[in-house]
Amino acid sequence: MVVGTGLIGGSVGMALRRRGWHVSGTDADPSVAERAAELGAVSATGPDPAADLVVVATPVRAATAVVKELLSTVGPGAIVTDVGGVKAPIAAAIDHPLFVGGHPMAGSEQVGIDGASADLFVGATWVLTPTSRTDPDAYARLRSILADIGANVLALAPEQHDALVAVVSHVPHLTAATLMDLASGVGQEHAALLQLAAGGFRDMTRVAAGQPGIWPDICDENAGAIVDTLDALIGALSGMRERVARRDREGLLEVLDRAAVARRALREAVPRPEGLVEVRIPVVDRPGIVYEILAVPTSLNIGVVDLEIAHSVEGRKGVLVLVVDEKAAPDLVPALAQAGHRASVQPLGSVR
Amino acid sequence: MVVGTGLIGGSVGMALRRRGWHVSGTDADPSVAERAAELGAVSATGPDPAADLVVVATPVRAATAVVKELLSTVGPGAIVTDVGGVKAPIAAAIDHPLFVGGHPMAGSEQVGIDGASADLFVGATWVLTPTSRTDPDAYARLRSILADIGANVLALAPEQHDALVAVVSHVPHLTAATLMDLASGVGQEHAALLQLAAGGFRDMTRVAAGQPGIWPDICDENAGAIVDTLDALIGALSGMRERVARRDREGLLEVLDRAAVARRALREAVPRPEGLVEVRIPVVDRPGIVYEILAVPTSLNIGVVDLEIAHSVEGRKGVLVLVVDEKAAPDLVPALAQAGHRASVQPLGSVR
Repeated sequence: MVVGTGLIGGSVGMALRRRGWHVSGTDADPSVAERAAELGAVSATGPDPAADLVVVATPVRAATAVVKELLSTVGPGAIVTDVGGVKAPIAAAIDHPLFVGGHPMAGSEQVGIDGASADLFVGATWVLTPTSRTDPDAYARLRSILADIGANVLALAPEQHDALVAVVSHVPHLTAATLMDLASGVGQEHAALLQLAAGGFRDMTRVAAGQPGIWPDICDENAGAIVDTLDALIGALSGMRERVARRDREGLLEVLDRAAVARRALREAVPRPEGLVEVRIPVVDRPGIVYEILAVPTSLNIGVVDLEIAHSVEGRKGVLVLVVDEKAAPDLVPALAQAGHRASVQPLGSVR
Repeated sequence: MVVGTGLIGGSVGMALRRRGWHVSGTDADPSVAERAAELGAVSATGPDPAADLVVVATPVRAATAVVKELLSTVGPGAIVTDVGGVKAPIAAAIDHPLFVGGHPMAGSEQVGIDGASADLFVGATWVLTPTSRTDPDAYARLRSILADIGANVLALAPEQHDALVAVVSHVPHLTAATLMDLASGVGQEHAALLQLAAGGFRDMTRVAAGQPGIWPDICDENAGAIVDTLDALIGALSGMRERVARRDREGLLEVLDRAAVARRALREAVPRPEGLVEVRIPVVDRPGIVYEILAVPTSLNIGVVDLEIAHSVEGRKGVLVLVVDEKAAPDLVPALAQAGHRASVQPLGSVR
């Protein structure tokens, strides 16, 4: 049973149904549950007191109350889990062996049931936060169900989860918004500023365009870890300020080098097939340019394994990166040149 | 004449030659100048004492000395400009009516002459920093030459340029590196961290993977503006910290809302043709997925005007965004569904 059939709940329903489960679904908005049934995300709408598993996919703020109520209404033996982005408060509030907190690290790009997909969790990290009160069998069953729908399950203590997401998600988001707000304040004096904002700035601030409404809840629930991480960031930025002010070139380079190594390692953490190269083509962002360029490998019957526009398509300049078999590059590059596009070839994942 | 025939200098050469100029080129590394000639970026290698225009595209640190020397060796009437990313120091050091400082906001993605392109500056902002000493005719001529190769020329006082790039480029870069370094320090204790780093974090820290070596020079040359901007950022982040600590939900939302509005305006600042929609398709990042999906519009003869993978292709999950004519969407979406891809349609540039 899925409670809250939006993007995450609907995707859980689709993924479970594909594995043969009967999934009933409810939503605070009945039309959303109906839409989930229409899309095949749930087998039926309405509560299912006989469910073996209940996935609570409501907004974070509602989850604790919903989980509590469900634990007293579902049958004995039913496992209850949630999908909220902050885990310590709900773990502290609910002392039940059959509740296991969870947080799938997937899918904030689309909103609502129409973005749901049975594949949403394939290859995604799904954190579970069992505690000393959790029934080991319930945890093992839940873990195996999530692995079965393609997730990489990672067990963390609730507090550990919250500290880590403060570092890789919450504080970066607040920082992006702060940078954007700062630039916007300056930009009111100098309209020129927006013209100078190139790809790097756009990349860094992109998340700030997202849904502001979800953040007060997250900041409220994870205040401790967020404050600690902001303190660490403010301290580290003060250190950078001192290095710049003192003209400490070596100290600056040390931090920047360390960060570059760490960022490249993050890229390499994703496994890539062997024998591929990047073909990089500077492009002007005008309508049809991507399609025009893709016609070249297509005409040569060269498979494009992957494709990226380095720097946002929002800007007017970019580099189109085609990932192709290294054996195809010697044919592709001259053909691109003939079509007026100068391409360079680099090993996959080299520094951009 | 182009001094320093790397990415920028080579691209200037190509763009000018396409407009019918004779362009000679030199480089501290003669093999680079030779390569530029091979690629047609320059008409000839070696200095040209009769040049009407000299573009100094050396590394920032060398530019002042090179410009000074050139001003005493080129013919009377020749305009000398540079392309360095910091403008006040060179403007202060060179008191000559025929020197106009410049900074094209283009092309840091590729490195070296092999990435050069005659199109690099089409639609790009090119800042010029004339001063009270600048000869107005020289400025007007340079401006018209740059407009002729496609650049949008923007005149700023050198100090104003430096203050603005501190906000939209230098401090964001230092912040990305600082965030990455912070996460990496935490990550050494918790290998789990890297697994939790989703698209937003990857977007924010991407620039930190770049070339650390260029930053000590930039920080040195633009230290004043960078320190001021870091102070402002540290102050703003301290304000965010207080709002989180005080559970000031309204204060948080106010900043986040303001930032979201500003970030969306940045997106809308890029003109887009009318009558287009975004078709958003959740994808698992596996080899061939982009090619597989593109086969659908291709088979229907639907032109893909633009294409973006929202969230990095480095991650395993993403949303492929196809920009197509709004009239094509009703045909494309069911065809994608038949191929197993659930797509949603949104107006162009809606919030992600």
